[in-house]
Amino acid sequence: MDLRLCELARRYAGGETVTDVMKQVLAGCDAYSDPAVFIKRIDHADVLELAAELDDINPADRGRLHGVPFAVKDNIDVAGLPTTMGMAGEQPIAERTATAVQRVLDQGAVLIGKTNLDQFATGLVGVRSPYGAPHSVFDEKMISGGSSSGSGVSVAAHLVSFSYGTDTAGSGRVPAAFNNIVGVKPTKGMVPTTGVFPANRSHDCLSVFALTAKDADMVRGIISGVDGVDPYARDAALVGLPQDSLRIGVPSAASLEFFGDTQAEDNYAAACAALSKAGYTLVPFDFDPFAATARMLYGSAWVAERTHALTPWLDASPDPLHPITREIIEDGLQYSAVDTFDAIYKAAEAKVALDVVWDDIDVMCVPTTPSFYSLAELEAKPIQLNKQLGYYTNCVNLLDYAAIAVPAGFRTDGLPAGVTLVAPAFTDAALARLGGQIHQLLSGATGRDRLTIADQDTPDAADGSYIDIAVVGAHLTGMPLNSQLTERDGVLRETVQTSSEYRLFALADTTPPKPGLVRDPESGGAGIEVEIWRLPESTLGGFLKLIPAPLGLGTIILSDGRQVNGFICESRALGNAVDITEYGGWKAYLSKTA
Amino acid sequence: MDLRLCELARRYAGGETVTDVMKQVLAGCDAYSDPAVFIKRIDHADVLELAAELDDINPADRGRLHGVPFAVKDNIDVAGLPTTMGMAGEQPIAERTATAVQRVLDQGAVLIGKTNLDQFATGLVGVRSPYGAPHSVFDEKMISGGSSSGSGVSVAAHLVSFSYGTDTAGSGRVPAAFNNIVGVKPTKGMVPTTGVFPANRSHDCLSVFALTAKDADMVRGIISGVDGVDPYARDAALVGLPQDSLRIGVPSAASLEFFGDTQAEDNYAAACAALSKAGYTLVPFDFDPFAATARMLYGSAWVAERTHALTPWLDASPDPLHPITREIIEDGLQYSAVDTFDAIYKAAEAKVALDVVWDDIDVMCVPTTPSFYSLAELEAKPIQLNKQLGYYTNCVNLLDYAAIAVPAGFRTDGLPAGVTLVAPAFTDAALARLGGQIHQLLSGATGRDRLTIADQDTPDAADGSYIDIAVVGAHLTGMPLNSQLTERDGVLRETVQTSSEYRLFALADTTPPKPGLVRDPESGGAGIEVEIWRLPESTLGGFLKLIPAPLGLGTIILSDGRQVNGFICESRALGNAVDITEYGGWKAYLSKTA
Repeated sequence: MDLRLCELARRYAGGETVTDVMKQVLAGCDAYSDPAVFIKRIDHADVLELAAELDDINPADRGRLHGVPFAVKDNIDVAGLPTTMGMAGEQPIAERTATAVQRVLDQGAVLIGKTNLDQFATGLVGVRSPYGAPHSVFDEKMISGGSSSGSGVSVAAHLVSFSYGTDTAGSGRVPAAFNNIVGVKPTKGMVPTTGVFPANRSHDCLSVFALTAKDADMVRGIISGVDGVDPYARDAALVGLPQDSLRIGVPSAASLEFFGDTQAEDNYAAACAALSKAGYTLVPFDFDPFAATARMLYGSAWVAERTHALTPWLDASPDPLHPITREIIEDGLQYSAVDTFDAIYKAAEAKVALDVVWDDIDVMCVPTTPSFYSLAELEAKPIQLNKQLGYYTNCVNLLDYAAIAVPAGFRTDGLPAGVTLVAPAFTDAALARLGGQIHQLLSGATGRDRLTIADQDTPDAADGSYIDIAVVGAHLTGMPLNSQLTERDGVLRETVQTSSEYRLFALADTTPPKPGLVRDPESGGAGIEVEIWRLPESTLGGFLKLIPAPLGLGTIILSDGRQVNGFICESRALGNAVDITEYGGWKAYLSKTA
Repeated sequence: MDLRLCELARRYAGGETVTDVMKQVLAGCDAYSDPAVFIKRIDHADVLELAAELDDINPADRGRLHGVPFAVKDNIDVAGLPTTMGMAGEQPIAERTATAVQRVLDQGAVLIGKTNLDQFATGLVGVRSPYGAPHSVFDEKMISGGSSSGSGVSVAAHLVSFSYGTDTAGSGRVPAAFNNIVGVKPTKGMVPTTGVFPANRSHDCLSVFALTAKDADMVRGIISGVDGVDPYARDAALVGLPQDSLRIGVPSAASLEFFGDTQAEDNYAAACAALSKAGYTLVPFDFDPFAATARMLYGSAWVAERTHALTPWLDASPDPLHPITREIIEDGLQYSAVDTFDAIYKAAEAKVALDVVWDDIDVMCVPTTPSFYSLAELEAKPIQLNKQLGYYTNCVNLLDYAAIAVPAGFRTDGLPAGVTLVAPAFTDAALARLGGQIHQLLSGATGRDRLTIADQDTPDAADGSYIDIAVVGAHLTGMPLNSQLTERDGVLRETVQTSSEYRLFALADTTPPKPGLVRDPESGGAGIEVEIWRLPESTLGGFLKLIPAPLGLGTIILSDGRQVNGFICESRALGNAVDITEYGGWKAYLSKTA
């Protein structure tokens, strides 16, 4: 069943009930063959009771995730359910619901169950759990990836529309690659982790799996924002990415690593070729120092952050810890406070040193994983292969970057492969938009059922922190003041016509020459050509300061009836201006009068 | 000599040379009686050589700190000079100049010397140094405060115009209180600490002493901004403080602490009375949890941050460490990595818990110190009294707040007292403005010579990250949409008239009722009353989105000829609008037609 948000919205708009849809969702979950995906399912009766409540809501009052089924990794609290964190046996019932869970419940989403994971989110494999090892939706012999194993599979198998993972070292990205779905690893602190059991609390992120970048980013947007509880939550204005002439950093040949997996290597080479063909500028960069930085996570006092989190279980009897988890955690006991500050400084210094990469590139595109392993291979080399899987993911949180893992098609052996886009903190919305475009370009399909990805699956980045401005004269592309937009990370969205109610005047005595757009219902013109530029909202004040009288920013009506912010003109300047409405636009006027 | 920046600028504009001024500055330093202020003076010849170079600069090319003498604490690197950090004996020559030093040198400031400190900036007293204990400029028996002892005294004694301290637990504030000057403790990370020897690197700030809030804030502005080296440096838009009905938090009676010093208690009570009388709203809050949080700095694994910094000297021979410094530092050796993360989390959690205070108050006004001690008293109880001095200062950096210490007049025993304003991160410019106002209100004098503080010594907060908007109708104070400004931390700056070239129209069919301001040189009116609101620039985009047609933001000409951004109106809306120019403003129109 296609559980994309747009498809569900279409069905609900068409009169289907949440009860109907949830019955199908529950049947799908019951029928799914892999028993290791969920640690705890919500009772059918409870799901249907909530569905009935949602069906009683007036359509106008529905939440933004009305009747959308989701799952959460079982290291995230839901009041009334145990949070096992991947430990066997009876575990305490959570008293509170995690902020990120509550925020989607408040929008009408329906929780279906809590999913399996590498115990304490320690691992990238999905096999370190007493609840079994979920397998990739494409091959029951292959691992699902982890630590958010069940969450990844639940979306890829079309059991739920989205799910939450957690991602400290790649746990929200690796399962996306192994199951042909999207994994959004938000900027650290953007989504509060209140109610999420910590791994490396300084670097933990709640992550979102979905079939499309658009769905994942919508959920990310809903759950973003400080909650007054999580001390690591941060509010900041979103940052844009250039839309034109985007520079995509790709690891230099010498710093690419596939551990001998030629299928993975070929897929990535094909992805790069496709990006290049699509017009993106690929810029090789040395990934080695990024990989080296990543080693701090487990090879220095940083690992003691995990030890801190697991202290209550270190001496518990019977021992609830997976032996590999215990081995990793006990390693943290050797470090001193002085070691810890040393590790903290080294990570901070590495960030400053490595951040210079953003002078040369706008975004990284790396393989999500260097290879893809079977359950049998993992059993043979549990630590080494786990470590290899994190080659491209481990550094990202330590360096405070945002990331999105998207499908990159299928290898010739029929297994899925993925790429991950990485960019500076708070580029999340822009990154999701780019991720949607690249998902469509490289794969065009999503999930086990290889649903077709279309334009509508790419977010339009219409985030509240952007503002669209209709420009009409010297700010148009190629015109003298256009740089005032591009310097502010402005992005050209579209070239459109105003409604026919506008006149355009060539103003006298302006440098550079400028027109004035004036609304006049008697115009009789055919509309004026304008460009819609999207600016980060935070830059608008600086932009306004550059606009001299008689011009200003107000509201413009477009030919299709939309209203957008844009340039207006005071009437007193029109006395000695020339009416150039007949030319239909400033560029046309300039070219015909040049 | 009056070394305030405005006074120096006046002298240089009047034709005096830097050479002339520096000769006087050097003579002043030579004549000053306390030999413990400087650890190292710059040679006269070197100062005068630089002065001559500055005198050769074309007036139009002069830096913003042309010919301004300054001093830096001797835990801050200046290339070519040793950085002793308060250790005796020969110390290595610094190879680089600290970012904050270089930035003022680039603006024409003249370094006079490097100042004494509590060794490794560990202390608030100024007596923990092999270079002697500077005394307060008001009494040679009283301590100067520390750890930035020499820097505080150098400004207070009118030897230099400004100086750098460092401030982790109050070292940039306590000496300000004991010497009747201003101490700015910027938001953490606002000023890079590249080239500053760390104490608690996670919490260290470079601080600025000056005679006035305006001078200190000007320097703070010049040295702010990431440098690409300091990993703890942060760029962020400045945040405003409400200007009207400011709520000043004062410690509740039960949480005030003066350790029996009735002189200090009386001075603070008088300061509160004066603030209240001046119209500020005083809101008591419980300071106890803030004081408790502060104890983490030395009473948990946080202290190991200092241990980390001093590791190279722990086993050095001969032992270069002050015995008290060593005692503190060695305490950090007992903590583990797990302890450290615990301390880090506890501090972060305390911040979230305590930040709710900002729901009730806009700024805190606390005594800078609870008391004032003599050198003899310190000798008798070196640790206890040091600890007491930090009662009001220790929590500030841990909680990521900005602070400014300003003079609060003199106690009846003739010693100076100070108050410190504390506010959330990145309020620095607004806090400096408020600090200047309160300095003038409570004291009106600065430095040893008790120079008169006037309006010109208060910064006007005209920072580039704000934008002034002239509002004319529903956004005026008391009008229905005014909250759109206050919610964005907007501050009313002034109520003024437009030029006479404007007409005001009551628009038809607007909710709430709104006027349109239209420039019309034929107006014949007497100008329209408008309010100028200052908004953080980053909020302007969101504000514009709320403005419906026919209104917009453009440029308004005021009666004094100034141009400011403000509300304009499209002409097509005027057809059925009523010309209300004769009323002179929207409020007058409403009241006379109600």
